[in-house]
Amino acid sequence: MTGWTLVALAAAVRARKISPLEITRDCLARIERLDPRIRAFITVDRTGALARAQALEADAMAGRWLGPLHGVPLAHKDLFRIAPLPTSCGSKTAEYFVCERDATAVMRLTDAGAITLGKLNMAELAMGPYGDNAHHGDVQNPWRMGHVSGGSSSGSGAAVAAALALGALGTDTGGSIRLPAGCCGIVGLKPTYGRVSRAGAMPLSWSMDHIGPMARTVQDVALMLEVIAGEDPADATASARPVDDYLAGLERPIRGLRVALADNYYFDGVAPDVARAVQEMARALERLGARVEPLRLPDPQVIHDVSGIVARAESTVVHTRILRERPHELQPAVRARLEVGERISAHDYLQALRLRARLTREFVQDVFDEADLVLTPVTPTAAPALAEVTAGDGEAIAARMGRFSRLTRPWNGLGLPVLALPCGASLDGLPIGAQIVGRPFDEATVLRAGHAYEQATDWHRRRPTPP
Amino acid sequence: MTGWTLVALAAAVRARKISPLEITRDCLARIERLDPRIRAFITVDRTGALARAQALEADAMAGRWLGPLHGVPLAHKDLFRIAPLPTSCGSKTAEYFVCERDATAVMRLTDAGAITLGKLNMAELAMGPYGDNAHHGDVQNPWRMGHVSGGSSSGSGAAVAAALALGALGTDTGGSIRLPAGCCGIVGLKPTYGRVSRAGAMPLSWSMDHIGPMARTVQDVALMLEVIAGEDPADATASARPVDDYLAGLERPIRGLRVALADNYYFDGVAPDVARAVQEMARALERLGARVEPLRLPDPQVIHDVSGIVARAESTVVHTRILRERPHELQPAVRARLEVGERISAHDYLQALRLRARLTREFVQDVFDEADLVLTPVTPTAAPALAEVTAGDGEAIAARMGRFSRLTRPWNGLGLPVLALPCGASLDGLPIGAQIVGRPFDEATVLRAGHAYEQATDWHRRRPTPP
Repeated sequence: MTGWTLVALAAAVRARKISPLEITRDCLARIERLDPRIRAFITVDRTGALARAQALEADAMAGRWLGPLHGVPLAHKDLFRIAPLPTSCGSKTAEYFVCERDATAVMRLTDAGAITLGKLNMAELAMGPYGDNAHHGDVQNPWRMGHVSGGSSSGSGAAVAAALALGALGTDTGGSIRLPAGCCGIVGLKPTYGRVSRAGAMPLSWSMDHIGPMARTVQDVALMLEVIAGEDPADATASARPVDDYLAGLERPIRGLRVALADNYYFDGVAPDVARAVQEMARALERLGARVEPLRLPDPQVIHDVSGIVARAESTVVHTRILRERPHELQPAVRARLEVGERISAHDYLQALRLRARLTREFVQDVFDEADLVLTPVTPTAAPALAEVTAGDGEAIAARMGRFSRLTRPWNGLGLPVLALPCGASLDGLPIGAQIVGRPFDEATVLRAGHAYEQATDWHRRRPTPP
Repeated sequence: MTGWTLVALAAAVRARKISPLEITRDCLARIERLDPRIRAFITVDRTGALARAQALEADAMAGRWLGPLHGVPLAHKDLFRIAPLPTSCGSKTAEYFVCERDATAVMRLTDAGAITLGKLNMAELAMGPYGDNAHHGDVQNPWRMGHVSGGSSSGSGAAVAAALALGALGTDTGGSIRLPAGCCGIVGLKPTYGRVSRAGAMPLSWSMDHIGPMARTVQDVALMLEVIAGEDPADATASARPVDDYLAGLERPIRGLRVALADNYYFDGVAPDVARAVQEMARALERLGARVEPLRLPDPQVIHDVSGIVARAESTVVHTRILRERPHELQPAVRARLEVGERISAHDYLQALRLRARLTREFVQDVFDEADLVLTPVTPTAAPALAEVTAGDGEAIAARMGRFSRLTRPWNGLGLPVLALPCGASLDGLPIGAQIVGRPFDEATVLRAGHAYEQATDWHRRRPTPP
């Protein structure tokens, strides 16, 4: 189980070298053995997964193939509606998010043959960069117990890293796919705003929410994206732009691609081992023929601040009910963040939306005139110990949370596609991740650069040995 | 001049019975004679209009016809950018609204052969239902000096009623086309939200602003709508839906159309002469074959309140600059309304947007399942005396303003097409107006019913005798 990538496993199923039932049983056994400590799952759907695997196995024997994910076991963040499983959204309430139809992204994976093992742990209401959760247990980093997995799609990061599932969907409003991908040493993609339908998923800040795939390799992520991307009558913000053939595009060379290495903000105050790993990645891309240049990016602090206003205002509206009726059920930090949102004026919110639109236009014009891609670290340090980040008073904790996600947040306001992938290890062996940022709807180039780097290096082959 | 409708005049020009220069001179002479008392114009572009008329005359003599409005003199509310004329938006500043390109709606009229006589008076920043303006003079009702013309497109209503121009563009965020149309006894259409491009026009509350035509007959308004409607790359909210052939559609019979007469709210507290006039209009429609039934509409107070929150929040953002930098230039009532907007929370604003979307969905489902059109009065009374509505303290004035526009406001939040047209006279001879409301983008049916009524009655033929 632990050796497979999603793409390799799908090929092996197709070649009848391995059966859907066998893989599913393997995954369920690993979950049973490891998850009591890792806490990646909120709900394991043992019965449903086995029944589905059996049906897919019968299909396979009869030569019926549902699609490119036939027989591949996945699991998803517990904010996607996947009936009849409950949808806690990481809250105390088993059924927090009520919605009429299953999540489009999950349905598309299922239609392509995927199996759903269950629903994954997450920061409460998707608010929090570490993956700690007072209701469902703190998700542990499979590389080192007691260290954070990254959040809010913490269970998605940990489950894929610990090989409890071959891939997972996450959501990303300020880094929630990329932070756990970075901390857990896997690959995660926040697509362009509008590239993937959000129907059937709990919103947080609807103008910055993104759904995206998390898996072990860039190729795995490319395949998942190809399946889930594209327009959807159930989500008016899902773009009608045609979806690229991402997998086929991976094999094109990256010679001549212009890669910008941010020479401000994104390396300021970043730990030396993290900075060094990303700079070495830049050199590896150079050896592959890319042209890497330092570039001064427009000050990200502005888009960061603007996005903060928008996120707080929108999330308060999304969660207005629990905030009014059962605020005591919320973890104090989550409640405090939602309450701050209530005090934002419509004037400031609307000005922030306008400013954000202008900053995005200017960023795309200025930066992508000079470069095809931007390269930055995911986090300023490798995954910290949970005890370390939760020390001190509320204000100290909030400031630390802000610093930890300060390299991922700006890209949500800008809506650009960003790939997070492993590019090194800290002095004590924890994964270090890099972000590759591209033009709007240019996931193909982002993935191509990530794949070329992955083929030339071994970081994605390193695997943790969970307890 | 005073006898012409827009359609008849355009036909006479086309038949070479009258020349563009002759008409334009006539209009300018009337403006010169009457407008010092009526105050409908902020800027009269004598030179520009005459030069344009001369050019159109030369074209006509050479057999070149620009379009269906060849040689027709119009004038427009002073919030449309029509370079090189200044755009005061009814404020103290001559050039309040700065914009890169001329208003699409005006350009389309010009491309169709219309002449622009000048720019029309309006309530300051389009905020106010009466048409009084401390900077540019209070627009007088051509039917009776000292009575309000209705606002905010006050100059548009008065100029058309006094035959200073054959038609005019107005804008409507809470009734600003329909109130002056009703008060001045002319026809005005607030199209469906998104039917007419708003590029080049000062916004007030962008999710409820509408641009529409004002003229003497339904036919005139239909022709203007046909020219200005349709998609526009410069305004993303302008719908790509095909534009109907409104003029041709007018001649179809209305037999069998189901007309709902609101039996709550829209007749509660309405003056007996107004209620009677609208009820008589209903009977006239019945005689034409329509099926008129009383119908209890969803409580409009809710959409009214919700729209109020949205309007205040958005308008405060639109006018943030003057409010910060030169608040003393604003009339006290306008300033107070903008300042209230600053205190609305993002939470309340966003909840209002959501509630508005739901109310609209429900209204369209429930009401238009029972009826094709809804019939209501425009105002609870005919045009009051200005001295009467400005008496008392700020709070009394504000409450009175709210009551005066309470029948028009709900339709802005719902975004439905509404035609205002004359349907009677008060005991002392002032015009009474009715609103015909239709399904989204069903301007054709709204206009058809209005035209059928107009053909069967004489109210649109009554003309005031300005001083």
